[in-house]
Amino acid sequence: MEPPARTSAPTIGELGESAVLARVLPRLRSGEASLLGPGDDAAVVAAPDGRFVVTSDMMVQGPDFRLAWSTPHDLGWKAAATNLTDVAAMGARPTALVVSIAAPVDLPVAVLEGIADGLRDALAELAPGAGVVGGDLSASHALTIAVTAFGDLEGRSPVLRSGARPGDVIAHAGARGDAARGLAVLFAEGRDEHGEPDAASAAAARERHPRLVAAQLAPRPPVAAGVVAALAGATAMLDVSDGLARDARRLAEASAVGIDFRRGALGADPLTALAGAEDHGLLAAFPPGVVPPHPFEAIGTANADAGRLTLDGEPVDTSGWDPYAGWDGVEG
Amino acid sequence: MEPPARTSAPTIGELGESAVLARVLPRLRSGEASLLGPGDDAAVVAAPDGRFVVTSDMMVQGPDFRLAWSTPHDLGWKAAATNLTDVAAMGARPTALVVSIAAPVDLPVAVLEGIADGLRDALAELAPGAGVVGGDLSASHALTIAVTAFGDLEGRSPVLRSGARPGDVIAHAGARGDAARGLAVLFAEGRDEHGEPDAASAAAARERHPRLVAAQLAPRPPVAAGVVAALAGATAMLDVSDGLARDARRLAEASAVGIDFRRGALGADPLTALAGAEDHGLLAAFPPGVVPPHPFEAIGTANADAGRLTLDGEPVDTSGWDPYAGWDGVEG
Repeated sequence: MEPPARTSAPTIGELGESAVLARVLPRLRSGEASLLGPGDDAAVVAAPDGRFVVTSDMMVQGPDFRLAWSTPHDLGWKAAATNLTDVAAMGARPTALVVSIAAPVDLPVAVLEGIADGLRDALAELAPGAGVVGGDLSASHALTIAVTAFGDLEGRSPVLRSGARPGDVIAHAGARGDAARGLAVLFAEGRDEHGEPDAASAAAARERHPRLVAAQLAPRPPVAAGVVAALAGATAMLDVSDGLARDARRLAEASAVGIDFRRGALGADPLTALAGAEDHGLLAAFPPGVVPPHPFEAIGTANADAGRLTLDGEPVDTSGWDPYAGWDGVEG
Repeated sequence: MEPPARTSAPTIGELGESAVLARVLPRLRSGEASLLGPGDDAAVVAAPDGRFVVTSDMMVQGPDFRLAWSTPHDLGWKAAATNLTDVAAMGARPTALVVSIAAPVDLPVAVLEGIADGLRDALAELAPGAGVVGGDLSASHALTIAVTAFGDLEGRSPVLRSGARPGDVIAHAGARGDAARGLAVLFAEGRDEHGEPDAASAAAARERHPRLVAAQLAPRPPVAAGVVAALAGATAMLDVSDGLARDARRLAEASAVGIDFRRGALGADPLTALAGAEDHGLLAAFPPGVVPPHPFEAIGTANADAGRLTLDGEPVDTSGWDPYAGWDGVEG
């Protein structure tokens, strides 16, 4: 058996856990809330107001991403960005992440280094001051990234889904449909002649449509807008991950209000704006008369027709994405 | 195509995410520290002393467990128990878990219900008052369980690995080697004629060796002993997951002490006690003269020979388990 090319592309199996951590951890910072970082059995994180916000999300190779389409940096970036948005949707300031990764033993350690760089860069841009306080490495067939994110409510009440009232202004911050458009670009132009995800085709498609493909693979959600909304008196808020219509219905049902969207506020393609998933914008309600603060834009109004969604008064379809219905079983 | 037998064994793909959650969540309680439980984008957890302890660990079908050997209840139990022990090893009281699960679409929902029951029962026995405050469901080929656990230091300093001093009493709480003996039972008696993990053989082996097999599949670590050690003045502590010798070396290196184990304190088979992994006991150091509190037992003494492990003065082998070296690639 030939010796593996250790210097050019060592795998995590060749290096072993300690050596992998020694290469990955220095790429990360533990952030301002970290009181005790990696190295012991657990980390210690500051929770200045005596509470912490926590959310968790797992990304699995196959159903959630393709290595032919996403760069390692994209994966780290998206894993951080989506969890930071869930923290922001509570009106909290993100403080820290914990990251557990399961990876095939033949994965080049450079992939984990790229994921770490993506995590670091997303934190620096979307949640300055927050860092990675701990984590775990395991073995698996499919690369799996589980992020748990924490936030500080800074003395405020959390902003729930259930607080909207009839008459509230419904406002949105972030992209509307771009992630879905980016996924459509990848399906149309990022596959080979057999229909399989293909890295070279995807890279070329990304050069042609950089904004849309990045919206899918490395979204830039309006994380800081979560605290902005809370300070402006938002009555309800949530992260728009499954499409604006589907998540608006959740807010409407939790709050027992209806929501009427204004077609003119949803851009040239209102149906994609309503149906497209994975934009990770923030949907919020503000009391009547409050001008939604930047970067929020008013897109509708809450009414008393509990749980009903309309677009200029016409019913809206809210079918959306289900994690167990949307995957074809391919890991590519 | 015949309709699937929905009433007897619906799969999570047939039910969809919402219906799965509706069956799983009622089996769990969110616990005393939960200020806002599942249902919003994030949970809110109490952190009464302005800090929280956090640890995370992922279990993957194949490298970490076999569905032919572990029951769903075992999986939930072990996922909770191992993370609770990491919290306890800091001298903290466990308060809450967040659980993310990725599962094949054809997995019977009863498996997730069993995992939830195992999580609930482990919390009730090992960390009364603590609960599951949130989580996430994703799709994958291999069942994957990621748990993040939280703890409250109740105003105390965390107990680190690095605080032991020469002359300290080295003490241990929990099983020593039983999990490894249980794994040996399963390898010897829990496989079919082709050497594959086999559920019927494993169940029979478990009836013959209930204590050892349970120590491997559903360990009962001394979680409450973590706070006991902290209150008794422990100078250093860690969770013994990779074997007593290997983890003792970590404590010794972090504290710049040597550790001499007493053979007479390690039972009839001191080498298995030192080498066996996955017992999830607690190894702690106490100042000279302190009698280790129950359930800790003195098993050695710290000395000035930094990083060196000995057994009645003779060198100890500390090779152990690496997550990327210990898996044969089979998921069974």
